[in-house]
Amino acid sequence: METDKIKAFAAEFDPQPFHLDETAAQESVFRGLVASGWHTAAVAMRLLVTGGLPFGNGLIGFGVEISWPRPTRPGDVLHIESEIIEIIPSRSKPNQAVVKVRATMFNQHGEAVYQMTAKLLVFKRTT
Amino acid sequence: METDKIKAFAAEFDPQPFHLDETAAQESVFRGLVASGWHTAAVAMRLLVTGGLPFGNGLIGFGVEISWPRPTRPGDVLHIESEIIEIIPSRSKPNQAVVKVRATMFNQHGEAVYQMTAKLLVFKRTT
Repeated sequence: METDKIKAFAAEFDPQPFHLDETAAQESVFRGLVASGWHTAAVAMRLLVTGGLPFGNGLIGFGVEISWPRPTRPGDVLHIESEIIEIIPSRSKPNQAVVKVRATMFNQHGEAVYQMTAKLLVFKRTT
Repeated sequence: METDKIKAFAAEFDPQPFHLDETAAQESVFRGLVASGWHTAAVAMRLLVTGGLPFGNGLIGFGVEISWPRPTRPGDVLHIESEIIEIIPSRSKPNQAVVKVRATMFNQHGEAVYQMTAKLLVFKRTT
Protein backbone atom coordinates (compact mmCIF):
# COMPACT_ATOMS: atom_id res chain seq x y z
CA MET A 1 0.00 0.00 0.00
CA GLU A 2 1.36 3.42 -1.00
CA THR A 3 0.61 6.59 0.90
CA ASP A 4 -0.72 8.47 -2.11
CA LYS A 5 -3.07 5.64 -3.01
CA ILE A 6 -4.30 5.38 0.58
CA LYS A 7 -5.10 9.10 0.55
CA ALA A 8 -6.66 9.06 -2.92
CA PHE A 9 -8.99 6.17 -2.08
CA ALA A 10 -9.94 7.83 1.20
CA ALA A 11 -10.59 11.19 -0.45
CA GLU A 12 -13.07 9.54 -2.79
CA PHE A 13 -14.76 7.01 -0.53
CA ASP A 14 -13.78 7.33 3.13
CA PRO A 15 -12.74 10.90 3.95
CA GLN A 16 -11.79 10.47 7.59
CA PRO A 17 -8.74 12.26 9.08
CA PHE A 18 -6.82 9.08 9.96
CA HIS A 19 -6.92 8.03 6.29
CA LEU A 20 -6.00 11.44 4.86
CA ASP A 21 -3.54 13.28 7.05
CA GLU A 22 -0.46 12.00 8.89
CA THR A 23 -0.67 14.54 11.70
CA ALA A 24 -4.33 13.91 12.44
CA ALA A 25 -3.68 10.18 12.17
CA GLN A 26 -0.91 10.41 14.80
CA GLU A 27 -3.47 11.75 17.23
CA SER A 28 -6.05 9.10 16.40
CA VAL A 29 -6.48 5.67 17.93
CA PHE A 30 -4.32 4.33 15.07
CA ARG A 31 -1.22 6.44 15.94
CA GLY A 32 -0.42 6.91 12.28
CA LEU A 33 -1.91 6.90 8.80
CA VAL A 34 -3.96 3.80 7.95
CA ALA A 35 -5.77 2.67 4.83
CA SER A 36 -9.55 2.68 4.70
CA GLY A 37 -10.81 -0.78 5.50
CA TRP A 38 -12.71 -0.64 2.19
CA HIS A 39 -9.45 0.06 0.39
CA THR A 40 -7.98 -3.00 2.09
CA ALA A 41 -11.06 -5.00 1.03
CA ALA A 42 -10.71 -3.79 -2.56
CA VAL A 43 -7.02 -4.75 -2.67
CA ALA A 44 -7.94 -8.19 -1.34
CA MET A 45 -10.47 -8.53 -4.17
CA ARG A 46 -7.79 -7.63 -6.71
CA LEU A 47 -5.54 -10.35 -5.30
CA LEU A 48 -8.36 -12.89 -5.43
CA VAL A 49 -9.41 -11.98 -8.97
CA THR A 50 -5.92 -11.77 -10.45
CA GLY A 51 -4.42 -14.54 -8.34
CA GLY A 52 -7.10 -16.84 -9.53
CA LEU A 53 -9.73 -18.49 -7.50
CA PRO A 54 -10.67 -21.20 -10.01
CA PHE A 55 -14.17 -20.16 -11.08
CA GLY A 56 -14.76 -19.72 -14.78
CA ASN A 57 -17.71 -17.39 -14.56
CA GLY A 58 -16.04 -14.96 -12.18
CA LEU A 59 -16.29 -14.18 -8.53
CA ILE A 60 -19.90 -13.16 -7.96
CA GLY A 61 -20.68 -12.58 -4.31
CA PHE A 62 -24.04 -12.92 -2.60
CA GLY A 63 -22.74 -11.91 0.76
CA VAL A 64 -19.63 -11.70 2.81
CA GLU A 65 -18.47 -11.36 6.38
CA ILE A 66 -15.30 -9.38 6.82
CA SER A 67 -13.09 -8.22 9.65
CA TRP A 68 -9.96 -6.14 9.96
CA PRO A 69 -7.86 -7.61 12.80
CA ARG A 70 -5.36 -4.76 12.43
CA PRO A 71 -5.00 -1.77 10.13
CA THR A 72 -3.11 -1.65 6.83
CA ARG A 73 -0.40 1.02 6.83
CA PRO A 74 1.72 2.77 4.20
CA GLY A 75 4.47 0.48 2.92
CA ASP A 76 2.66 -2.71 3.82
CA VAL A 77 3.16 -5.54 1.35
CA LEU A 78 0.13 -7.78 1.27
CA HIS A 79 -0.61 -11.29 0.19
CA ILE A 80 -3.73 -13.42 0.46
CA GLU A 81 -4.47 -17.04 1.19
CA SER A 82 -7.82 -18.55 0.35
CA GLU A 83 -9.55 -21.85 0.82
CA ILE A 84 -12.82 -23.33 -0.33
CA ILE A 85 -14.79 -24.37 2.73
CA GLU A 86 -17.98 -25.72 1.27
CA ILE A 87 -19.77 -26.31 -2.03
CA ILE A 88 -23.55 -26.25 -1.81
CA PRO A 89 -25.26 -27.42 -5.05
CA SER A 90 -28.43 -25.57 -5.96
CA ARG A 91 -31.57 -27.68 -5.52
CA SER A 92 -33.50 -25.92 -8.23
CA LYS A 93 -30.72 -25.16 -10.75
CA PRO A 94 -28.54 -28.19 -11.44
CA ASN A 95 -25.77 -26.20 -13.12
CA GLN A 96 -25.31 -23.81 -10.18
CA ALA A 97 -23.81 -23.97 -6.73
CA VAL A 98 -22.94 -21.66 -3.90
CA VAL A 99 -19.33 -21.92 -2.84
CA LYS A 100 -18.19 -20.72 0.55
CA VAL A 101 -14.66 -19.31 0.49
CA ARG A 102 -12.52 -18.04 3.32
CA ALA A 103 -9.59 -15.75 2.65
CA THR A 104 -7.06 -14.08 4.92
CA MET A 105 -4.77 -11.27 3.83
CA PHE A 106 -1.44 -10.84 5.63
CA ASN A 107 1.11 -8.05 5.78
CA GLN A 108 4.88 -8.49 5.45
CA HIS A 109 5.12 -9.34 9.17
CA GLY A 110 2.77 -12.28 8.74
CA GLU A 111 0.01 -10.44 10.60
CA ALA A 112 -3.58 -10.83 9.40
CA VAL A 113 -5.01 -7.50 8.30
CA TYR A 114 -8.19 -8.77 6.67
CA GLN A 115 -10.38 -11.83 6.91
CA MET A 116 -13.27 -12.63 4.67
CA THR A 117 -15.81 -15.41 4.38
CA ALA A 118 -17.83 -15.11 1.19
CA LYS A 119 -20.66 -16.96 -0.48
CA LEU A 120 -20.12 -17.03 -4.22
CA LEU A 121 -22.41 -18.02 -7.07
CA VAL A 122 -20.68 -20.47 -9.39
CA PHE A 123 -21.68 -22.40 -12.49
CA LYS A 124 -20.68 -25.81 -13.74
CA ARG A 125 -18.28 -25.89 -16.63
CA THR A 126 -20.09 -26.24 -19.91
CA THR A 127 -17.29 -28.19 -21.62
CA MET B 1 -22.92 5.51 -10.45
CA GLU B 2 -21.27 6.57 -13.71
CA THR B 3 -20.04 4.12 -16.32
CA ASP B 4 -16.50 5.51 -16.41
CA LYS B 5 -16.19 5.32 -12.63
CA ILE B 6 -17.52 1.76 -12.58
CA LYS B 7 -14.89 0.76 -15.14
CA ALA B 8 -12.06 2.68 -13.46
CA PHE B 9 -12.73 1.12 -10.07
CA ALA B 10 -12.98 -2.33 -11.64
CA ALA B 11 -9.76 -1.88 -13.61
CA GLU B 12 -7.93 -1.14 -10.38
CA PHE B 13 -9.57 -3.55 -7.96
CA ASP B 14 -11.97 -6.01 -9.60
CA PRO B 15 -11.00 -6.61 -13.24
CA GLN B 16 -13.81 -8.94 -14.26
CA PRO B 17 -15.48 -8.68 -17.69
CA PHE B 18 -18.95 -7.82 -16.38
CA HIS B 19 -17.50 -4.74 -14.64
CA LEU B 20 -15.34 -3.58 -17.55
CA ASP B 21 -16.99 -4.23 -20.88
CA GLU B 22 -20.62 -3.76 -21.95
CA THR B 23 -20.57 -6.54 -24.53
CA ALA B 24 -19.08 -9.12 -22.20
CA ALA B 25 -21.47 -7.97 -19.50
CA GLN B 26 -24.46 -8.55 -21.80
CA GLU B 27 -23.45 -12.17 -22.04
CA SER B 28 -22.90 -12.57 -18.31
CA VAL B 29 -25.43 -13.53 -15.67
CA PHE B 30 -25.97 -9.78 -15.09
CA ARG B 31 -27.15 -9.04 -18.67
CA GLY B 32 -25.40 -5.69 -18.64
CA LEU B 33 -22.60 -3.74 -17.03
CA VAL B 34 -22.64 -3.74 -13.21
CA ALA B 35 -20.47 -2.10 -10.59
CA SER B 36 -18.08 -4.15 -8.51
CA GLY B 37 -19.71 -4.99 -5.21
CA TRP B 38 -16.66 -3.43 -3.55
CA HIS B 39 -17.29 -0.22 -5.44
CA THR B 40 -20.87 -0.29 -4.17
CA ALA B 41 -19.55 -0.88 -0.65
CA ALA B 42 -17.12 2.03 -0.97
CA VAL B 43 -19.87 4.37 -2.17
CA ALA B 44 -21.99 3.29 0.80
CA MET B 45 -19.09 4.17 3.10
CA ARG B 46 -18.84 7.61 1.53
CA LEU B 47 -22.55 8.18 2.14
CA LEU B 48 -22.20 7.06 5.77
CA VAL B 49 -19.10 9.17 6.43
CA THR B 50 -20.32 12.33 4.72
CA GLY B 51 -23.97 11.91 5.65
CA GLY B 52 -23.02 11.68 9.23
CA LEU B 53 -23.44 8.79 11.52
CA PRO B 54 -23.01 10.70 14.79
CA PHE B 55 -19.68 9.39 16.09
CA GLY B 56 -17.06 11.97 16.92
CA ASN B 57 -14.03 9.75 16.61
CA GLY B 58 -14.97 8.45 13.19
CA LEU B 59 -16.35 5.23 11.83
CA ILE B 60 -13.87 2.55 12.85
CA GLY B 61 -15.04 -0.92 11.94
CA PHE B 62 -14.12 -4.17 13.65
CA GLY B 63 -16.14 -6.30 11.36
CA VAL B 64 -19.06 -6.21 9.02
CA GLU B 65 -21.53 -8.47 7.27
CA ILE B 66 -22.57 -7.31 3.84
CA SER B 67 -24.80 -8.51 1.06
CA TRP B 68 -25.72 -7.29 -2.39
CA PRO B 69 -29.39 -8.16 -3.00
CA ARG B 70 -29.09 -6.87 -6.57
CA PRO B 71 -26.36 -5.25 -8.65
CA THR B 72 -25.66 -1.54 -9.02
CA ARG B 73 -25.81 -0.39 -12.64
CA PRO B 74 -24.69 2.68 -14.59
CA GLY B 75 -26.98 5.62 -13.93
CA ASP B 76 -28.18 4.34 -10.59
CA VAL B 77 -28.76 7.06 -8.01
CA LEU B 78 -28.13 5.73 -4.53
CA HIS B 79 -29.09 6.72 -1.03
CA ILE B 80 -28.53 5.04 2.29
CA GLU B 81 -30.56 4.58 5.45
CA SER B 82 -28.89 3.58 8.69
CA GLU B 83 -29.96 2.70 12.19
CA ILE B 84 -28.18 2.00 15.43
CA ILE B 85 -29.22 -1.44 16.64
CA GLU B 86 -27.23 -1.88 19.80
CA ILE B 87 -24.67 -0.14 22.02
CA ILE B 88 -22.43 -2.48 23.99
CA PRO B 89 -20.28 -0.66 26.59
CA SER B 90 -16.76 -2.02 27.05
CA ARG B 91 -16.30 -3.81 30.37
CA SER B 92 -12.60 -3.00 30.61
CA LYS B 93 -12.52 0.47 29.06
CA PRO B 94 -15.24 2.72 30.47
CA ASN B 95 -14.89 5.35 27.74
CA GLN B 96 -15.41 2.88 24.88
CA ALA B 97 -18.28 0.98 23.39
CA VAL B 98 -19.05 -1.16 20.41
CA VAL B 99 -22.00 0.08 18.41
CA LYS B 100 -23.86 -2.18 16.04
CA VAL B 101 -25.19 -0.33 13.00
CA ARG B 102 -27.33 -1.58 10.15
CA ALA B 103 -27.47 0.27 6.86
CA THR B 104 -29.29 -0.35 3.61
CA MET B 105 -28.52 1.41 0.35
CA PHE B 106 -31.28 1.79 -2.23
CA ASN B 107 -31.35 2.70 -5.90
CA GLN B 108 -33.73 5.19 -7.51
CA HIS B 109 -36.39 2.47 -7.82
CA GLY B 110 -36.38 1.90 -4.07
CA GLU B 111 -34.66 -1.45 -4.48
CA ALA B 112 -32.03 -2.47 -1.94
CA VAL B 113 -28.62 -2.91 -3.60
CA TYR B 114 -26.51 -3.21 -0.46
CA GLN B 115 -27.04 -4.20 3.13
CA MET B 116 -24.51 -3.93 5.89
CA THR B 117 -24.38 -4.73 9.57
CA ALA B 118 -21.23 -3.35 11.16
CA LYS B 119 -19.64 -3.33 14.58
CA LEU B 120 -17.97 0.01 15.21
CA LEU B 121 -15.58 1.14 17.91
CA VAL B 122 -16.79 4.37 19.48
CA PHE B 123 -15.57 6.61 22.30
CA LYS B 124 -17.46 8.68 24.82
CA ARG B 125 -17.45 12.40 24.26
CA THR B 126 -14.74 14.07 26.31
CA THR B 127 -16.64 17.34 26.72
